[in-house]
Amino acid sequence: MALIVQKYGGTSVGDQERIRSVARRIRDCRDRGDHIVAVVSAMKGVTNQLIGLAQGASGPEMHPKRELDMLLATGEQTTGALLAMTLHDLNVPAISLTGGQAGIKTDSVHSKARIKYIDPEWIIRPLEVGMVVIVAGFQGQDDNGNVTTLGRGGSDLSAIAIAAATNADLCQIYTDVDGVFTADPRLVPQARKIDEITYEEMLELASAGAKVMQPRSVEYAEKLKVRFEVRSSLNQTEGTIVKEETPTMEQVVVRGVSLDENQAKLTLIDVPDRPGVAAKIFQALDRAAVNVDMIVQNTRHGSAPSTDMSFTVDRHDLATSRRVIEALKPEFGIEKVQVQEKMGKLSVVGVGMKSHSGIAAKIFDILARENVNIDMISTSEIKLSVVISSDRSQQALRAVHAAFLE
Amino acid sequence: MALIVQKYGGTSVGDQERIRSVARRIRDCRDRGDHIVAVVSAMKGVTNQLIGLAQGASGPEMHPKRELDMLLATGEQTTGALLAMTLHDLNVPAISLTGGQAGIKTDSVHSKARIKYIDPEWIIRPLEVGMVVIVAGFQGQDDNGNVTTLGRGGSDLSAIAIAAATNADLCQIYTDVDGVFTADPRLVPQARKIDEITYEEMLELASAGAKVMQPRSVEYAEKLKVRFEVRSSLNQTEGTIVKEETPTMEQVVVRGVSLDENQAKLTLIDVPDRPGVAAKIFQALDRAAVNVDMIVQNTRHGSAPSTDMSFTVDRHDLATSRRVIEALKPEFGIEKVQVQEKMGKLSVVGVGMKSHSGIAAKIFDILARENVNIDMISTSEIKLSVVISSDRSQQALRAVHAAFLE
Repeated sequence: MALIVQKYGGTSVGDQERIRSVARRIRDCRDRGDHIVAVVSAMKGVTNQLIGLAQGASGPEMHPKRELDMLLATGEQTTGALLAMTLHDLNVPAISLTGGQAGIKTDSVHSKARIKYIDPEWIIRPLEVGMVVIVAGFQGQDDNGNVTTLGRGGSDLSAIAIAAATNADLCQIYTDVDGVFTADPRLVPQARKIDEITYEEMLELASAGAKVMQPRSVEYAEKLKVRFEVRSSLNQTEGTIVKEETPTMEQVVVRGVSLDENQAKLTLIDVPDRPGVAAKIFQALDRAAVNVDMIVQNTRHGSAPSTDMSFTVDRHDLATSRRVIEALKPEFGIEKVQVQEKMGKLSVVGVGMKSHSGIAAKIFDILARENVNIDMISTSEIKLSVVISSDRSQQALRAVHAAFLE
Repeated sequence: MALIVQKYGGTSVGDQERIRSVARRIRDCRDRGDHIVAVVSAMKGVTNQLIGLAQGASGPEMHPKRELDMLLATGEQTTGALLAMTLHDLNVPAISLTGGQAGIKTDSVHSKARIKYIDPEWIIRPLEVGMVVIVAGFQGQDDNGNVTTLGRGGSDLSAIAIAAATNADLCQIYTDVDGVFTADPRLVPQARKIDEITYEEMLELASAGAKVMQPRSVEYAEKLKVRFEVRSSLNQTEGTIVKEETPTMEQVVVRGVSLDENQAKLTLIDVPDRPGVAAKIFQALDRAAVNVDMIVQNTRHGSAPSTDMSFTVDRHDLATSRRVIEALKPEFGIEKVQVQEKMGKLSVVGVGMKSHSGIAAKIFDILARENVNIDMISTSEIKLSVVISSDRSQQALRAVHAAFLE
């Protein structure tokens, strides 16, 4: 008999039929003798509806965050109550709890609160008498009893924190994909599901554009040492286990590859090479809420020391970035700004890369043979990313996948 | 500087424009230096939508009441957050609270909980720093922290209980009518708004079919000695003050008249006149959830003692009532059941009736002159009701109104 924490995202509880299917899955687990805690998101679309209401009440972005939290928290509370009712209808005793009732204590930073601790008494007592416990995800309560929400990916955080606090045997993150794949199957038909992956690899894949989970949730699971499974609520297929690195894991050099096709690259020509210039440029971009991804700089040695500096941003931030840079041009005497609008970032991830030299060389060789020009390179211990022109990036992805993972 | 508790019903907060108009009203009150606690209902239609969702989750009436409360409570929480945001947008600091956060402690009878007490600390602290406090009506929390709801008219109960617990100077019930009228203005063009009315009169009018407030809320206000005003959220007109009887009140014999046009009358001919028969008949009707209103019995003295017994029910319950009675006919040897389908109940209410004899005679005289036949009569200390055929009931209402109130 195991204690299983299951998290069901917005698509998994998207309508009444989907909720009923989740309820049946929970019933079947319970029939096998397991204790179930189900953490639920708002039904798909509901959070956006609520945000629409908020924007009607006070212009965009102007709504007080405490009240926005009160409003948004109703979404998960609604799903929880409906799932409990559906379970009752299947003769499964169940109780739904708000985040606050479930003992999820957070700080008071509304709209992106951090979980401080969980007092799991309210979760454990009904479990002990055989009930399924449903917890509204994404939300908690601060020390003064105010409703807080945890920000993007918040329901995953709730599930992981509850799994840790209750010493659960298993934490399952139900979503609409079968697990984590060696590459995006829409781009690489040969991609296959990964059985086990380390937190670090999952993090690097997530930050490289694989959208299964927010990096924040993966970091949190790593910190709390919660092993979890990403799997689909649409079938019975086993998913991907995310956990610490263990000797029994499949020994591979490369675990997966990913491609972010929405990058743009800016190059500032002849930036004066003196301390503080780079800092000021990136501070200005930060103030404009531009996320800078990769940065590369090369110092030229000539009469006046100057440098060429390149960086990538999400393509949606390109216009803003240009405006910011144009405004700084006179102050720093920047000669020229080059823009490459359609770039892709190809990342290769695997804990095996730590101990295998020569991976970079092999990747560069594959790309050369595909006649793909590398614009920028960046590496971490277990990841290598290259920025390339996006018109050949899918071809490059398939070639790298074929070489390492097929 | 006064502390005012204002309750806004579902129509008053029916859409974003109405919520904005409520926010402006609150701002204006606050600008005059008053402290405001606003108790809000769910936006019109929302509760029915939520009940629809519940019925999808588990067949009608089968949903566990605890979970239905969790679900329904989101409706008022949503209105509260939206009103707080709108107030912020008008530069008025405001905080919204769930029933539980507002310290409304109830028993654990889900879907019709009773308020046990209110710990008003969470309401009073923000008031003291100049904030408007918004409380989700209709809901509270039991001793174990479960969300409860108070049943029909629950938001009025919330407002009255909060007014008592905070020692408010004024409690205003905002609705879509200007107050309590001497008669329904749609039926009696000469009807006028009543400035002051006693709890008792309001109760008798409410139970006689005037639909401004649930009798339960009026009784509760009387018990807690909370004086309140019923007024419209659509204009600035003063409403009707409901309070204990005072010497300064306008001295009238009749305060108002009302008409319930949805009555039906059943007469059981030749019911055996022996103990326990009436009890069994009305127990059977009660089990079938039929609300019996007026009962009249006359014993006939003949060879076998038997009686004719008449009673009225809401017309919607007529079919059920007939079925119940038909089933009892053989057991009690009831000869015949007569049904009058379209009856009206005309009620005349006023504390002045206590001390004025002859009111009944005057009413009967008016009806006789209008050629209206009286089927049944029932009286209380401050009310006289007659059941008459509904085809002449509006005419009778106008005649009685003209005689006493014009």
